[in-house]
Amino acid sequence: MKRFLPCLEWAKTYNKRVLTSDLVAAVIVTIMLIPQSLAYALLAGLPPEVGLYASILPLVAYALFGTSRSLAVGPVAVVSLMTAAAAGNLAQQGSAEYLTAAIVLALLSGLILLLMGFFKLGILANFLSHPVISGFITASGIIIAASQLKHILGISANGHSLLEIGLTLAEGLGNINLNTLLLGVGTLGFLLWVRSRLNAVLIGFGLNGRLADLAAKAGPVMAVVATTAITYYWGLDDRGISVVGAIPQGLLALAIPTFDFALWQELFLAALLISVIGFVESVSVAQTLAAKRRQRIRPNQELIALGSSNVASAVSGGFPVTGGFSRSVVNFDAGAETPAAGAFTAAGILMVTLLLTPLIHFLPKATLAATIIVAVLSLVDLKSIKRTWDYSRSDFSAMMVTILVTLLVGVEAGVVSGVGLSLLLHLYRTSKPHSAIVGLVPGTQHFRNVDRHQVDTDPTVLMLRIDESLYFANARYLEDLVYDQIALRPQVKHLVLMCPAVNLIDASALESLEAINERLNDSGVSLHLSEVKGPVMDQLRRSHFLQQLTGGIFLCQYDAWRSLSKGSRQIDMDANPTAKNPGFESTP
Amino acid sequence: MKRFLPCLEWAKTYNKRVLTSDLVAAVIVTIMLIPQSLAYALLAGLPPEVGLYASILPLVAYALFGTSRSLAVGPVAVVSLMTAAAAGNLAQQGSAEYLTAAIVLALLSGLILLLMGFFKLGILANFLSHPVISGFITASGIIIAASQLKHILGISANGHSLLEIGLTLAEGLGNINLNTLLLGVGTLGFLLWVRSRLNAVLIGFGLNGRLADLAAKAGPVMAVVATTAITYYWGLDDRGISVVGAIPQGLLALAIPTFDFALWQELFLAALLISVIGFVESVSVAQTLAAKRRQRIRPNQELIALGSSNVASAVSGGFPVTGGFSRSVVNFDAGAETPAAGAFTAAGILMVTLLLTPLIHFLPKATLAATIIVAVLSLVDLKSIKRTWDYSRSDFSAMMVTILVTLLVGVEAGVVSGVGLSLLLHLYRTSKPHSAIVGLVPGTQHFRNVDRHQVDTDPTVLMLRIDESLYFANARYLEDLVYDQIALRPQVKHLVLMCPAVNLIDASALESLEAINERLNDSGVSLHLSEVKGPVMDQLRRSHFLQQLTGGIFLCQYDAWRSLSKGSRQIDMDANPTAKNPGFESTP
Repeated sequence: MKRFLPCLEWAKTYNKRVLTSDLVAAVIVTIMLIPQSLAYALLAGLPPEVGLYASILPLVAYALFGTSRSLAVGPVAVVSLMTAAAAGNLAQQGSAEYLTAAIVLALLSGLILLLMGFFKLGILANFLSHPVISGFITASGIIIAASQLKHILGISANGHSLLEIGLTLAEGLGNINLNTLLLGVGTLGFLLWVRSRLNAVLIGFGLNGRLADLAAKAGPVMAVVATTAITYYWGLDDRGISVVGAIPQGLLALAIPTFDFALWQELFLAALLISVIGFVESVSVAQTLAAKRRQRIRPNQELIALGSSNVASAVSGGFPVTGGFSRSVVNFDAGAETPAAGAFTAAGILMVTLLLTPLIHFLPKATLAATIIVAVLSLVDLKSIKRTWDYSRSDFSAMMVTILVTLLVGVEAGVVSGVGLSLLLHLYRTSKPHSAIVGLVPGTQHFRNVDRHQVDTDPTVLMLRIDESLYFANARYLEDLVYDQIALRPQVKHLVLMCPAVNLIDASALESLEAINERLNDSGVSLHLSEVKGPVMDQLRRSHFLQQLTGGIFLCQYDAWRSLSKGSRQIDMDANPTAKNPGFESTP
Repeated sequence: MKRFLPCLEWAKTYNKRVLTSDLVAAVIVTIMLIPQSLAYALLAGLPPEVGLYASILPLVAYALFGTSRSLAVGPVAVVSLMTAAAAGNLAQQGSAEYLTAAIVLALLSGLILLLMGFFKLGILANFLSHPVISGFITASGIIIAASQLKHILGISANGHSLLEIGLTLAEGLGNINLNTLLLGVGTLGFLLWVRSRLNAVLIGFGLNGRLADLAAKAGPVMAVVATTAITYYWGLDDRGISVVGAIPQGLLALAIPTFDFALWQELFLAALLISVIGFVESVSVAQTLAAKRRQRIRPNQELIALGSSNVASAVSGGFPVTGGFSRSVVNFDAGAETPAAGAFTAAGILMVTLLLTPLIHFLPKATLAATIIVAVLSLVDLKSIKRTWDYSRSDFSAMMVTILVTLLVGVEAGVVSGVGLSLLLHLYRTSKPHSAIVGLVPGTQHFRNVDRHQVDTDPTVLMLRIDESLYFANARYLEDLVYDQIALRPQVKHLVLMCPAVNLIDASALESLEAINERLNDSGVSLHLSEVKGPVMDQLRRSHFLQQLTGGIFLCQYDAWRSLSKGSRQIDMDANPTAKNPGFESTP
């Protein structure tokens, strides 16, 4: 029960001191979350109040089921972009169908996460390699920033790829609204200054570091308050500055999203990608924060928690949510000690939704766009591209394909092609495994690559070390390798496959070994194995291979050498006591 | 040039003796190939003459480009079934569109094979694991046998999955034609008897083994001649026995298939699967036969040869072809010494097509169906299912999914889901790698699993051996494993990751190692690596990881132990001369 409801754990020791910490953090996060929720709803192409809806019940659900003490869930940039792309494929922004699609996405992605949690499939998230995620997030950041330029310029533009956005922006360049541009660029400048300088300035004024840090993070809130006041006071909404406008006031309406099988089917892939990307992002934030306080999170329980949060978002009319980096850091820095802080934040946002929405009427969209642009700039990680290029060309190519396809085609195609390519590259990489012909380092019992070391060899014994697990992708290569090497050396009578790095022999590789054994036998060469690992040996015992094997199996390569090589056979005639003995113990 | 046209190689030494051998083989194969070509055209849902067209030019193309001395190409069972499934998705059997689709499939699959050959992508075929191919061929054999029952029963039935075929067969059961049933079951019984007994009977009569074997293989030809004669003589075609009928007589018409982009797009996946399955089947036949005579084939040149054969089939109005097992074995046994035998066979079949087709008019379809059923029964390999179950549950599940999806949904879905599942299972299998905490075997320099052996350990030094390459699928697991093990042992000051089985560290795993290094440092534990392989070490040098590493890198685990463990430090104070030394040589 405690495993399933981690809140029972921390609730036991909850006290007044912790309550105070959580309440303070909740107030700070609430203030910060309001502009963020409105902005991400705008990014997702949804009415601003939907952002608020998505920031109430999901937080309560996470407080009940989540294992991280500091994670704050809600709308986040990348997931909002993915929502816009998926819903935009089906309906026009602003239409009822568009909103329905967003809500169904939250529900589906909630159900997918819950299923993954119940079946402990958190491991599936591992199939997203780091370069693919990193490339995807960088590309998303660029697309998001580009998509918000229209609000700064006061023109209209749309599209889900950089190309579409760029083309529609270029068309509208003649209609730039100067008032909007002034306000937008001003806000952008202010936010960038706050981000880079305010901290230092405040510390210069004698403020302590943590407070200065929090104040700097409140930049978006200051911008929202100031620009809303200016717009209201001077009536700038009549001068072409587009504002958020009237927001329906009142209670949150709970409803079960419509069940439309065709719609579910159309949104399934998008929901799956949103689930996995959201989960990976959230877990990495949660793990980073947990490590700072020596806490642990449980990834499979996190699936349940995020799944419930998304279902909660869907039934209250919201869109997909996940754990966000910036708000979680604010929550952590503001001193939140338990997930209760999230529940208090939810209460705060509920109050704002009920009472304060009229104040938001005059909030300029340009301000929200500026806060989004500044927020997503930190997602663009060009250094990681350089680092990956230096480290591995293969990882680099998966990363670049992800970035380019995401930018040029769209977010779903980007993730899918990145994952597909990294799988193929992995298979390709292991399909021609590194191997070496080895010999005995004189005076030792060690065997090393004949090309790199001065070693003893015997023309009648070929010793081949394979540095990879043997499985379907390299089974045929192994056959070719062996036949080629044997064809080059007519004197060879014994082939020893040295297997210290073989962690697995699957059924395809077993077939290949059987074929090798049989064909070598036809040409008078016996096949031996050495240094076979325990689990691999256990599995081989379940086949007929060991009975058919023309040679022996040696615990270590030196035993094979002593037993098979001519030079040493003359000295040591009682060799190979372990080979073919079914009771011997395998390595290691 | 000789690499691209292997015929230049064998043509140099061609002489009268070889010519005689090749001619004899060609006559035998021609006789055997005629009923087979007609039967597989019937299986593919095409007019019988298309089977003949597909057995002329493709053989000439293979004779020019192929590297196997004994392979015989032409229509084969599995590929014919796949052709029927793909063409049947687009058009009604018997329509002109259906024939066009089959021809375009041959052309596309020829082009795909040629492209794969030019780019040396033969390795892609390795992604079909052995259990998937074996399961697919078994399921195809069952479907083919079921699909031919209608000809034996004299009723109509259709469908591409066992379910559809079964249902339509059940509907028609009331209309069984008794004459057809009698003829069909009689032929089936005769063919089965020939297959299992004739050989022994003939040897009993004093015939030599090889001739008896060839005579037994001529069973289908005998059945064709006998049932055609009976049908003609008694006019059985008027009594409900359906016959092949009139075949257009005359010259082979060459034509370039229509280019219809939409059609090409629709058939692309099917053509890709036909190419890969056909290639894998053909190469394995060719390799088996080549090994018997100590010859080698070149898989990438085989792609070119099979690609040309399919293009040749398409331009002469035929359907997809590949190297077939039974006819290649006949060719081999009949003494074919060079691919010229294939060219002579082509000439033989051309003559039959030009002159003898009227004789085929009264050939009953039930006879062809019986020859197909007997031929495909050998494809069903139930022992291999049992063997795979014993050896590996994971390979078994990929095999069963392939079999079940092929039987119940269809051939394309079967291959795709089998390949997809075997990829996922491979990732899953490596996503939780085997690992062991190791200790020093007293009196040696060897380190073994503490759970399996009596070994020395030090509570401040945790030595962890990872038995798998580190890459994206297991990077996060590695982090979890390390944090869990460290959390269990508060005394630990040093963690040594022992990497003798780590053949690769990709960018995702590098990120995880960096995170581990940093988080362990926060809790006062240093991270060391030992026995890092040469290529892995080379790659790590291209990152900043080695500079950030809090501990050292040891050539062998024993050095790490001497340098870090308390007990041995007191004895041996000058430990660890190699750690952190950039010039040391890595293992192995």
